[in-house]
This record gives sequence, C-alpha cells and structure tokens, in this order.
Amino acid sequence: MKSATTITAISTAPGVGGIAVIRVSGTEAIQHCSAIFRARRKSVQLAEQAANTIVYGSITDSANEVVDDVLLSVFRAPHSFTGEDVIEIACHGSVYIQQRILQLLIEQGCVLAQPGEFTQRAFLNGKMDLSQAEAVADLIASGSAASHRMALNQMRGGFSSELMKLRGQLLDFVSLVELELDFSEEDVEFADRTQLKDLATGIEQLITRLADSFRVGNALKNGIPVALVGETNVGKSTLLNVLLNEEKAIVSDIHGTTRDVIEDAVNISGITFRFIDTAGIRDTKDKIESMGIERTYQKIEQATIVLWILDCTQLSEHIEWLTDKIEQRAVGKKIILVFNKIDKIAEEEREVLNQLFEQFEGERIYISAKNRLNTDELEKALVKAAQLPEINPGDVVVNNIRHFQALQKALFSIQRVNEGLESGISGDFLSQDIRECMHYLGEITGSISNDEILGNIFGKFCIGK
Amino acid sequence: MKSATTITAISTAPGVGGIAVIRVSGTEAIQHCSAIFRARRKSVQLAEQAANTIVYGSITDSANEVVDDVLLSVFRAPHSFTGEDVIEIACHGSVYIQQRILQLLIEQGCVLAQPGEFTQRAFLNGKMDLSQAEAVADLIASGSAASHRMALNQMRGGFSSELMKLRGQLLDFVSLVELELDFSEEDVEFADRTQLKDLATGIEQLITRLADSFRVGNALKNGIPVALVGETNVGKSTLLNVLLNEEKAIVSDIHGTTRDVIEDAVNISGITFRFIDTAGIRDTKDKIESMGIERTYQKIEQATIVLWILDCTQLSEHIEWLTDKIEQRAVGKKIILVFNKIDKIAEEEREVLNQLFEQFEGERIYISAKNRLNTDELEKALVKAAQLPEINPGDVVVNNIRHFQALQKALFSIQRVNEGLESGISGDFLSQDIRECMHYLGEITGSISNDEILGNIFGKFCIGK
Repeated sequence: MKSATTITAISTAPGVGGIAVIRVSGTEAIQHCSAIFRARRKSVQLAEQAANTIVYGSITDSANEVVDDVLLSVFRAPHSFTGEDVIEIACHGSVYIQQRILQLLIEQGCVLAQPGEFTQRAFLNGKMDLSQAEAVADLIASGSAASHRMALNQMRGGFSSELMKLRGQLLDFVSLVELELDFSEEDVEFADRTQLKDLATGIEQLITRLADSFRVGNALKNGIPVALVGETNVGKSTLLNVLLNEEKAIVSDIHGTTRDVIEDAVNISGITFRFIDTAGIRDTKDKIESMGIERTYQKIEQATIVLWILDCTQLSEHIEWLTDKIEQRAVGKKIILVFNKIDKIAEEEREVLNQLFEQFEGERIYISAKNRLNTDELEKALVKAAQLPEINPGDVVVNNIRHFQALQKALFSIQRVNEGLESGISGDFLSQDIRECMHYLGEITGSISNDEILGNIFGKFCIGK
Repeated sequence: MKSATTITAISTAPGVGGIAVIRVSGTEAIQHCSAIFRARRKSVQLAEQAANTIVYGSITDSANEVVDDVLLSVFRAPHSFTGEDVIEIACHGSVYIQQRILQLLIEQGCVLAQPGEFTQRAFLNGKMDLSQAEAVADLIASGSAASHRMALNQMRGGFSSELMKLRGQLLDFVSLVELELDFSEEDVEFADRTQLKDLATGIEQLITRLADSFRVGNALKNGIPVALVGETNVGKSTLLNVLLNEEKAIVSDIHGTTRDVIEDAVNISGITFRFIDTAGIRDTKDKIESMGIERTYQKIEQATIVLWILDCTQLSEHIEWLTDKIEQRAVGKKIILVFNKIDKIAEEEREVLNQLFEQFEGERIYISAKNRLNTDELEKALVKAAQLPEINPGDVVVNNIRHFQALQKALFSIQRVNEGLESGISGDFLSQDIRECMHYLGEITGSISNDEILGNIFGKFCIGK
C-alpha cells in the first residue's frame, strides 16, 4: 500500500537546539531533496547515493542562495522506518532554518506530515503492527524506567507476537468448524472438540492474565495517584516540595506531546507518583470552605495512596473527628500516617502520639520535611504501598486502554466459546464466537482496523514521528 | 591538537520530540559506542564501519537490556564536524531515553561536553576559524532572514578570508621592515614605503567600512528597538498585540540558547523589531507616577524608532505639552505618529487632526488597531524607518561586538601606521604599529587567541553544539 504523497516534518523537539532533523518520506523524497540540495563534492548525485549513507552539502533556495550547510541521511525503500524512501536532513537548529527548509520542501511538492503519519506509514507498509506503532508514541512519552520498559517491550513486538500466535491457532480451528458447516448434512466433526476446549481454556487464561496486567501497566504508565491530606499548616506544601525536588526536572520535561502536562509527578525507584495536593481539612461552618473540603474528599477517592500528614507539635483537638472523616473516605486505599516536625518533640511525646493512634493499622513514618529527616523512609513506604511487581525485560504488560478494552471483549467471546463447548452448541454459533474473539485480538495488532481507529491512534502522536 | 577526552551531549533541542540526536566526539568515540551498541546485522562491527554511513541497531546497558532501537551515523577524523571521530546516535526522543543513553556513554568513559565544546574542537582542529565558529552560535540563534544571512555568510568564511588576506599582506611588509632593522647601520630600505602606504590606506578604508557595518549588523542581529508611547488608554496594548500577533510564535521560540529571552519581538519583512511598551504619559503631580513616566522617557532614549500613539476620538487637552515632552526626548529618533481608532471619527475631524499636527515632520499613519485597519501600512512605515540596507548573499557585515571592538583597535593601529608613514618614523615604531594591527585582526579569526577569549566565546553556546 503506497501513499501518493511525499510527507515532511521536523522530527526533533520544537525550539532551538544545536542541530535539528527534518524528515522526508515518500516516493519523491529523493527527487524533492535533490532539487534543494547541492552536495559539497560536485560529483555526488543524490539519486545515485547508496542507501544508509550520509552526504554533506548545502540547502539552497530558488534564487540559489544558501540556506544552511547540512548533512543528508539517505534511506531507501523498503529498508527505512516508514518502508518508503526517506531523507533525513540534519541542519543547524535555529527555528528560522528549520522553518525555511520545511518551506522549501513544501514548495517542491512535499506535504506537511500529520501527527504520527510517519509511524502510520510504517504500519501501513507492514514495518510494524498496530500495537508496536502505538508503543512508539508511548516510548517517546515515557518518563520512567518502568513505563519505558513496557513501551520498548511492546514496540519490539513481545505483546503482538503472542496475540498473533493465538489468533492463528483460533483461525485453524474455526476453519475446521466452518468446514463442518459445509458438510452439515453429513454430521462430521473435523475440529477435535477436546483440543479446541484446551486451546480455548488456554486463551482464556492468557487473556485474563493480560487484562489483569492492565492495573499495573496503567499505574506505571500514568503514575500512581497519591493524595496529601491533613489540616492546614501541618507542612503539606513543604513535604510536597521535598518529594518533588529530587527528579522533578526530568518529569516536568514531559509536556505537550501525546498527553497533558504531568504536574507534580516524580519518579521514585522507577515508579511515577502523581501527587495531588489538597486543601487543609478542618471542621468548619463556612459554606465556601466546606466546598473546598468536599473537593479534598473527592481527591482522596481518586487516589490509590493517601499520605495523611500530622503536625507532631500541635495535634488538633478535632483529631478523632478527622480520623473518622479520612478513614471513611479512604476505604480500600493505602493510608500512610506521616508525623511531621518530629525533630521538635521529645521521645516521650512521641510515645503519646503512638498510643493515640493505636487503632491505626497502616504504615506510620516520623519525619521532618523541613530538615529532610527520614524523607527517604517515606519514599520507601510509598514504593511499598504502590504494590507494583517489578517489570522485567521481556514481560508483557498491557498499559493501553484500547488494548485493555479489546482484551475484555475478546475475553467475553472466548468465555462464550468455552461455555458453548461445554453445552455442545452447534458449529455455526461456535464459529461466530471464535470469529468474534479473533476480531478483537486482531484489533489490537491492527490486522483488523479502520480509518477511525487509525485516526484516533496516530492523531495523538507528536508531529514528525 | 588532539583532545584527550571523548565528549558527548544531546545535540537536539531539549524536551520531547520524535527523535533526538546524541553526539559523541573524540578518539574513543567509536570504541565507547561499540560497547553499548548491538547492530541488527550481527556481522556489522562499528570499528570497521565505513565513514559517512548509518547503522541500525540497539543501545543496550550493562545487564544487556535494550534501552532503545537507534540509528548510528559514523564519521571519521578528519572528515567530521569536529575533525575527530564522531558518532551521532539518533534515538527515540523521550527525555528518559536521551538521559539513559547519555548516562551509559558516561559510564563508558565519555565526558559531558561543555557548551560549544564540539565547535571549539572544530576550531582547535583547524576545521574553521574563530569568527566562523562564532557564526555557528549566531546561526543557531538567528530568528530573522537578515540575521540568518549574516551568520551564514560569516560561517561560510566570507568575513575571515578578507581579514586573513590583509593580515598576510601586512605580514609580508612587516617582515621587510624588520629585516631593515637587522641592517640598520647600513640604512637600506627593503620595504617600499609607497606600496606600504597604499596597502595601509586600503586596509584603513576596509576596516572603516567593516566597523561601520556594525550599526546595521547589530540592529539586524539584536533587533531594532521601537518604543510605544502615548497617553493611557489610547490603545497601546491593543496595537502591540496586533503587531506581535503575526509571527510571534517563531520569535518567541528563540530562548535560552546563547542570549536572553527576546520578549515582544517580531519579524517584519525579515527585520526584527523589539517593541518596548511604556507607561502612559500624563501630566501628573503624583510622585510615584512621575517616576514611572520618567522611565518612559528613558525607554524613548533607548529606542531607535518611537511610535507615538494618539486616540483620534479623544485628543488630550495636554496635547501641546505632550508634544513638547516627546519631541524633547526623541531627538535623533524616527517618530511615527499613529492616529488610532480612526474608524470612529468622520472625515472632517481627521482634517482637524491634520491641522493640529501641521508642524510635525515625521510620518503619520491612521489606523484602527482593534479592527486591524491599516496596520499593514504601519508595518511598512516601520520597515522604512529602520533604514536598513538589504543584506545580500555574500555581503560582509560585522554583527559581533567582539569583532567590532577588535576592528576599532586595528583601525587605530593602522591609522598610526599611516601617520607614521607620512611623518617618516623609524622602522621599529612602524613595525610595532603594523604588528599591533595584525594582532587585532588575528584576534577576530582566532590566529591570536587565549583561553579566556575562547572560554568567553564558547561558554555562550548551547550544549551539544
């Protein structure tokens, strides 16, 4: 499936850099680039340049004025990212030069690439399946070791090869079942029902396992929501700053590509935690303040982990009321009790605190956020509370909601196949359920796809990929 | 001059992009990259890979886990940007992957490159002279057609070749003059004083021309300051927004590389204008407000062009006082009188306005900022007021304050040579003045340089270039 147009886009991050790379892909990539490129060595012809080589020269405009000195990388179909002829122009990284070269390419007849269009062409040209293509976007957006590893496994095909195998086995069986239908009057059975039952049970288990991995995958990909709650002035903001300080830079860099800005997220031991700051809780009759506190409760409900922060030096008189309130709202969440300003009280007072919270079953940590005392213990407690199994290289983890939904539907179909086999339903119903399961598995890898699905997937990519 | 270390840095713009490029340069570039790279085709050895070719494979860590699938471009000394062995790793553009690969390279023994260190090595290895190296940074930072063209001319050596030729001619002469000194007792004259006079006069003219071009060069590089003044509520902010709206995006992208953020700057017909908003002027006794207005006057003094904005519908009663004030402070500036809200008044009223400003000699434009009426006329007036000659491809224009200062010193020395020749001073004084002139010309191209100068120049580069 060859596209008629030759597309181009800036593939490196937006803004000024030492160098920038402009990608051109399509049947006329070499021709369009030849028109605006003069190799330093006069004898060099781009059209005759060997694949996977680099040429030094200049980009010139229609008035023959030099726009920049560049390096051109030449890739030839089908051995390129997109499977088409590809030229990558490495130019000096000023915004002006990037725009100017793009403009010259468009004047030659190139079309500005849509977000993800290079990867979409790679998919359409059979260079990768759909789940691999989706992993490219995840890989670019991944900001932690775990999410990076999941995306890389998926991009390298770990996920789809398993699904394709299952789908192939189902296809073999359904063909036999459908063959029986052609001979329905003769009441033959080509497809061994016992073997089919084994296969369907195996598939059900595998799909269940994959669908279950979504809880972990999603948490790793999107971060684990942690609500910081407590009364006003207990040191929530100070603690938040301490927690965010360490590797904040790397996380806050992830912006504007395929998802919204991640705010106040941080990597601890390869796991992304998203911190949700809340308004201080207190018993109040003020209507507006009550609304703020109601929002705090809602945020607790969104969180997986609740950090409940207390000021050791000044325990509220409402502490029991507060304990009730928080425990009511945080059912099923991990609560970590954080005693802040621990350096300000004596050992005996600490004992009193402990007795006061005798009933509390969760983890408790004593820190001084201001003096960074024991904050590493708190980080360890967070990682423990996240309860995420470590992802090993090669592990297959589903982290994509589209895949999860397709898996759930496939699971439903295969369960019906199993039930049907037990109750001995007729071949045509059986065949329909197997086909349905195959359909949903195919949706994941893109064997079954339509423009709407593709538009949804590639529209979320950044331009230039 | 070979550097002992092998350096590495991310060369593309910071942040997330489709792809990112990590550059490695030095004698051990290929060795260090081999240690973390596995080519897809097992037979490929990086050490035996031909120059200017691209290899597909994976970056792996010490546990043999794949970090990313990448393309490696191989360049070999001396045919590379730095003149050393260079590897460019094109990886997926997530911040995580970029950092991880950088980390692996550092574990192998690479050193993080200082800002501009790649270009500095190119200079030290004789790939370019100092003014060409400086032009690389200018090229990356350039945000308009004119500043881009100046930087490109300079990078391609137009500037330095002229200076080198002059310096060579001076060297020939000074050698002869110094030879005379060795034979001073015999009173011979090897250096033809008439020829030397012609040369020195020619050089004086050329240096004068170059130094004079700095006014234009500097304006083109740093933008032409335009002050927007007027009373409060005449529509200054609306007009500013209209002026900035058109190509704001491209200009505001230029940040944080080699100079401070350019705020409120815009390209009009290839010229960068920097707009300076000011507090509204009015006759006031209020002390704090007076201080604000005093600052407005100072800003007028910094500007080259003053846009004086008036509200047609509501001419101030203080208009004469204001006219005086602005004209007092704007001596030598181009003033453009901008009548705003012109759509709100009748033709007759316009005539009244015209008579009121009969005395005013500058350009006058009638606009409606809100309805974008005639704002293109205003832009044309700005370009005209800028009075910048067009820079043609190949024109040599000085736009670097370091070059300008060196040229001024060289000019001073060559003037002394000319005076000395006229007054017939002795050969040793003459030789000293010629040597001084040569020294300053050499400072520009880097024939004469020291660590401090180099540190100053390359410290302003972005990392990765």
